[in-house]
Amino acid sequence: MTAVDFEKFVEELAHVSGEAILPFFRTALSARNKSSAGDFDPVTEADHAAETAMRRLIEQFFPEHGIVGEEFGDRRVDAEYVWTLDPIDGTKSFICGFPTWGTLIGLSHKGAPVYGLMNQPFTRERFFGDGEAAFWSRYDGAEKRRIATRRCAALSEATLMTTSPLLIEEGRLEAFRRVEKQARLSRYGGDCYAYCALAAGHVDLVIEAGLHPYDIVALIPIVRGAGGIVTTWSGEDASKGGAIIAAGDPRVHEAALKMLGA
Amino acid sequence: MTAVDFEKFVEELAHVSGEAILPFFRTALSARNKSSAGDFDPVTEADHAAETAMRRLIEQFFPEHGIVGEEFGDRRVDAEYVWTLDPIDGTKSFICGFPTWGTLIGLSHKGAPVYGLMNQPFTRERFFGDGEAAFWSRYDGAEKRRIATRRCAALSEATLMTTSPLLIEEGRLEAFRRVEKQARLSRYGGDCYAYCALAAGHVDLVIEAGLHPYDIVALIPIVRGAGGIVTTWSGEDASKGGAIIAAGDPRVHEAALKMLGA
Repeated sequence: MTAVDFEKFVEELAHVSGEAILPFFRTALSARNKSSAGDFDPVTEADHAAETAMRRLIEQFFPEHGIVGEEFGDRRVDAEYVWTLDPIDGTKSFICGFPTWGTLIGLSHKGAPVYGLMNQPFTRERFFGDGEAAFWSRYDGAEKRRIATRRCAALSEATLMTTSPLLIEEGRLEAFRRVEKQARLSRYGGDCYAYCALAAGHVDLVIEAGLHPYDIVALIPIVRGAGGIVTTWSGEDASKGGAIIAAGDPRVHEAALKMLGA
Repeated sequence: MTAVDFEKFVEELAHVSGEAILPFFRTALSARNKSSAGDFDPVTEADHAAETAMRRLIEQFFPEHGIVGEEFGDRRVDAEYVWTLDPIDGTKSFICGFPTWGTLIGLSHKGAPVYGLMNQPFTRERFFGDGEAAFWSRYDGAEKRRIATRRCAALSEATLMTTSPLLIEEGRLEAFRRVEKQARLSRYGGDCYAYCALAAGHVDLVIEAGLHPYDIVALIPIVRGAGGIVTTWSGEDASKGGAIIAAGDPRVHEAALKMLGA
């Protein structure tokens, strides 16, 4: 697997998943969702179609690789290379017709996330990184630029995002609220889009809890490649999911971590 | 002002505002925001540039028309035709690098909103309507389709959106929470995008408070044109702003209105 082959392969994964999902976004929702008396769930249909398409390609080109997927479970999780797939991260945004969801494609080597891509087929943009660098691009490649987190000296200057405080369990919510009170601006919603906005230097802090590995693995090499930090609330490896904190500036990461653990 | 001329004119307003705003979205934010020690506010810059460009065109082609703008105040508000402009509705989304903000361009005739357009220059999409019909299109016109609200028989089946409960004042919040508890799904964020998602049949209910006229005037002909209802919480004219409720199905509007007034 050369570097060029690899990039082309991930692009193909993004392409087939986008093609599988888009017919179910917006148009299909209004036309079909209510007409079949609740039997038809466009998110599930799109999720399944996209993960099936991506799995088929991986099985075909890299039969020895492992796969962890949201929809169809895990196989060969002890393989040297393991793909972690989430066809639609941000299903509520998807349901509401908002373009702030994404397809997450992550690759781990011996358990460590080494490449990640977030694909948004409606806006036709991608965020991707390998832990060393991170990029944003349009589909057609006409626009591509390196992204970087921004400096932020203190929590009091930070823009904070979380998908929803309702997703943070009781025992952790108080700690989250403490950090939120210190932040300059707190905003809800976002899912994978929030981490990409952090990597691109528009958001300083993302704090969540209860994440699955497939919610975060692909985002780790993007955030790190952009110069950011992503760990659990106790400062440990984020790739297993759980309570996660991402920061663009290590000073904010350290300050928030202290308050979350207090 | 013929129908054709008018459509071309509004498209031109959308075009000049988009051109004025886009250089400040995302790239400019990370590059400039922090470097000038807080003196440079990209949202304000973009807001000013876009409203200036739109006002210039209106003054040039329709000097007798009135203008109500978020940034530069009102003039000739008693004119037969009055434009209501909000260059960036959803500034927090804009700040966070999310594409869920929009430029609102509304036209009122003798005080009644008769045409509205929401322009999203990053995703290159527009939602527009005249109270009789509503449409979604891409910039290039390659994709254009009529939009319609979806049927929703009861609050218990409704997807509800509000920009943030924090924007609803104490006295009204309890009533909002009552409705929220009944809804199937409640989601925060959205600003103008929530009303457009409702018009396109993905969201059933938008409930907000404390809106200015420029937050809502342009959205009224879009929601109505798609078959929806938009009023104040007491069922009155929405075009003055305040506490606003929009629904895709009159049954949900009626049910929510009863609970908001209870």
